[in-house]
Amino acid sequence: MVFEIIERDLMGRIGRVKTKSGIIETPAILPVINPFKLTIPPKTLQIEFKVNAIITNAYILMKNFYKEVTAAGVHKFLDFNGPIMTDSGAYQLLVYGEVDATPEEIVKFQELINPDICVFLDVPTGSGVSYKTARKTVDETLRRGRECLEIKSKEGILWVGPVQGGEFIDLVEESARQISRLPFDLYALGSPTKFLEQYNYSKIVEMIVAAKRNLPLNKPVHLFGAGHPMVFPLAVVLGCDIFDSASYALYAEGERYITPYGTKRLSELKDVICTCPVCYKHTPSEILRMEKKMRIKLLAEHNLHVILNEINNIKYAIREGRLWEYLECKSRSHPTLYDAFKLLKKYQDYLEKGTPTSKKRALLWLSDETVNRPEIKRHLDRLNKLQIPWQPRTLLIVPEFKNKPFSKSKLYNQLLNNILMRTDILKNVQIVILSKMFGLIPIEIEEYYPLSQHLTPTIISETHLNLIKDTLIKFISMNYFKKIILLNDERQYGSILTEFLLNMRNENKFSDLQVFKLNNSSYIGQEDLYKLKAILTGDIENC
Amino acid sequence: MVFEIIERDLMGRIGRVKTKSGIIETPAILPVINPFKLTIPPKTLQIEFKVNAIITNAYILMKNFYKEVTAAGVHKFLDFNGPIMTDSGAYQLLVYGEVDATPEEIVKFQELINPDICVFLDVPTGSGVSYKTARKTVDETLRRGRECLEIKSKEGILWVGPVQGGEFIDLVEESARQISRLPFDLYALGSPTKFLEQYNYSKIVEMIVAAKRNLPLNKPVHLFGAGHPMVFPLAVVLGCDIFDSASYALYAEGERYITPYGTKRLSELKDVICTCPVCYKHTPSEILRMEKKMRIKLLAEHNLHVILNEINNIKYAIREGRLWEYLECKSRSHPTLYDAFKLLKKYQDYLEKGTPTSKKRALLWLSDETVNRPEIKRHLDRLNKLQIPWQPRTLLIVPEFKNKPFSKSKLYNQLLNNILMRTDILKNVQIVILSKMFGLIPIEIEEYYPLSQHLTPTIISETHLNLIKDTLIKFISMNYFKKIILLNDERQYGSILTEFLLNMRNENKFSDLQVFKLNNSSYIGQEDLYKLKAILTGDIENC
Repeated sequence: MVFEIIERDLMGRIGRVKTKSGIIETPAILPVINPFKLTIPPKTLQIEFKVNAIITNAYILMKNFYKEVTAAGVHKFLDFNGPIMTDSGAYQLLVYGEVDATPEEIVKFQELINPDICVFLDVPTGSGVSYKTARKTVDETLRRGRECLEIKSKEGILWVGPVQGGEFIDLVEESARQISRLPFDLYALGSPTKFLEQYNYSKIVEMIVAAKRNLPLNKPVHLFGAGHPMVFPLAVVLGCDIFDSASYALYAEGERYITPYGTKRLSELKDVICTCPVCYKHTPSEILRMEKKMRIKLLAEHNLHVILNEINNIKYAIREGRLWEYLECKSRSHPTLYDAFKLLKKYQDYLEKGTPTSKKRALLWLSDETVNRPEIKRHLDRLNKLQIPWQPRTLLIVPEFKNKPFSKSKLYNQLLNNILMRTDILKNVQIVILSKMFGLIPIEIEEYYPLSQHLTPTIISETHLNLIKDTLIKFISMNYFKKIILLNDERQYGSILTEFLLNMRNENKFSDLQVFKLNNSSYIGQEDLYKLKAILTGDIENC
Repeated sequence: MVFEIIERDLMGRIGRVKTKSGIIETPAILPVINPFKLTIPPKTLQIEFKVNAIITNAYILMKNFYKEVTAAGVHKFLDFNGPIMTDSGAYQLLVYGEVDATPEEIVKFQELINPDICVFLDVPTGSGVSYKTARKTVDETLRRGRECLEIKSKEGILWVGPVQGGEFIDLVEESARQISRLPFDLYALGSPTKFLEQYNYSKIVEMIVAAKRNLPLNKPVHLFGAGHPMVFPLAVVLGCDIFDSASYALYAEGERYITPYGTKRLSELKDVICTCPVCYKHTPSEILRMEKKMRIKLLAEHNLHVILNEINNIKYAIREGRLWEYLECKSRSHPTLYDAFKLLKKYQDYLEKGTPTSKKRALLWLSDETVNRPEIKRHLDRLNKLQIPWQPRTLLIVPEFKNKPFSKSKLYNQLLNNILMRTDILKNVQIVILSKMFGLIPIEIEEYYPLSQHLTPTIISETHLNLIKDTLIKFISMNYFKKIILLNDERQYGSILTEFLLNMRNENKFSDLQVFKLNNSSYIGQEDLYKLKAILTGDIENC
């Protein structure tokens, strides 16, 4: 197996790509090496930056360093003994419209210089092209992919199958479907660069999902040309494993300073806002006063530190099962990233596939978009199908408490001693817990993860209320209760739920409503408890 | 002037506190020096960490190092020539119930060892005490404050006036009001530690606002005992300038690793997730295998790097005018921090005071809580008072475009050539732009900051819609239009606004509604343009 998946969260995963020069642990960012200009030498990347894989351009090598690189092999030529990936010149094809090499030549040249991962000369769709042209790039990429697999003869090299189609989502889907039938070791999504430049993250989301849904989930996927850390969390959430970054050096040349939430001109920076080895030693104004070559070198180093650290933080978030929360925070970097984050609502089913059913940590409600978490969707899907087999006549609705599970609460204890020990009562009552995170939780399943392992804000938002109302409506119409009893926490809900249930009763969704007010938001008064018991017993007599 | 304010955003500020040993640039975090255990020596703090001020405990010095520290002075004793603040033993009073020294002794001892900033022995309210006890701590603190000002005789020392009252907001207000009448150089808010430990950030918000509203705005304010970076952005937004942190060392001793969004056990960490000099050199597992003393030293260093970097990032956010956005992102670290962030809605007027009317950067809409920004409140306050002096009969509502201002749009150009050049039409028409960020913007003021300098998501949320509807209702009822014309961007708003305006018309808020659909979300068709012109001219004839 070329790719081993170690941990998952949402569609992100920590994995290991096995190459002949070593393992690439994903999510990974491969710094792009420009053979003309080693802003940071590959050896330094390996030793000082602990970078374990790099990417360079086979076409540039072929056209400019043919003799040296074919003689030495790409590892010796670049002085890097870890995994090396070579891109094919497709980017040059996109920018200049043509390249001075055939797909066959590029395949053979790559085998000659012997990197670990290779891409054949695919035809990037780019942006702003017609549907017809886009379709041609897809078809031609596929044709070249098939040709590549026929031509290639060297063992030990992993080959990448790129998906094209650009902004045409149906073409991306088709391209992915077709290329996934060819036995590539990795897949890639072709140049989203234009959309990234336009901050069109919503389009990126659509493109990635369209590709990923049609690619085998057990193969790593490279997102080409996405080198800015702002996009990494989103792309990883959607299932991208490998990135390449020329940006650390390109931004440095433009005297730009990368931060996880955007890029600044070095000259705009007054404060040290980073702890990386470069920023620890030099203030922005010191760097600004250095001679140009040193300034660019230091900026490139800083930029790379930030980029690598972002990948490490994402990896850690996957390991901890808090990738959603990580993105929830990071998506507050730009309104367009926030747009893209909201769009994930459309892809809950897709994201749910990779989300573990159990984690070590509590889920956190951090904004109203938390409602789109696949864990919530998962619960609601089950709840909406849940018809209680013993058909109880009464629904008893209890509030949630800060300390979960409910069965540890004072109220539960009261119910336990007086009601829940009575099997004659029990068979006629279903107890559900109101939940700001999950709407409603039947008491029988409350200890299943994450139904008691989550933290919500104290303030109830419209989103919480709507969630509770929606689940109430569905649960009640699925189960035909005669009577509904609400133990109301007025401090939290006021009379909102009472009115809501009254309306439902008036619409004959059930016939009888009884509301008890909790004392001090936490327990039921003695008299009310007797009354509650009497009602529940009365139900039995009526049967 | 002891305190000079350089930059502001919300109630946060970059300032300079002038002490006899140098300037403390705020927001500042003063590492706490435990004289028994110099986890990181003060000299190292100064040189390697660029820390320019520290805090230590006068009571501990007095009880344990009396001879040495009175002989050498606190600067020589600690080997630190920058500003030193001494706390008074009030914390020991809180923890142990009593201290073995009188307030007078503490004042005199501090003058003897000659730090730059001193606190008299105040009486911390703490938490979980009765109102009566709390009131006593407030009164006794005030009495001791007065006494301190009478006793103190040494020139050149700055004295701090602490505010007490704990969770009793009216007591905090009174305490602040009273202490602010005494001529202290700095003020402080007493021990919120318990609430911080409980993650009760909402209480912290209330306490800070209660204190700050009653303290002079031109004096620096210290928030005692808030040493975790999670709370810094919120506290700075509300106007706290100085923090102290024992946490970098205390957490290290508990083998805990601070991150900007929470704290981890070192043993839980698998990945390097930080670029600081410690983490650059050592992986978590390497640190875990070291001997204990070295492990704690390195952890303390890491923790301090994170803490200092957070302060630097906050400072930078103030400088850039994006402190709200910084907090908007950071408040997604925990549900209780999110609660506290939402609570800022209550304090818009307070926060507005410090918010510049003009900034170099565009405002970003990053979540539905963005609607609570003081810049929006500021606009709505003006809008809600705006009665158009020339009393136009017609309101023309136009959509906003991604590229602002509206006057650069194709639609504006169409209106300009056909309508806006006609002064006879103009005096009867008010044009307003629908805005996702500001509700409504009268066209005359659209170029004032930030009415055209902001970015919003593409997706319209309920919050946007409610904002627009609310401002429409208020604007229309303030100005008595006869006719309303909506140039509707259906792609954005569908028929929502049309229906909303129809309802208003049916309620006789105005008498005539005309809706034109925009082509391609961007311009008005030729025929519609003529019709619009005719309507507007017709209005004139009807007058």
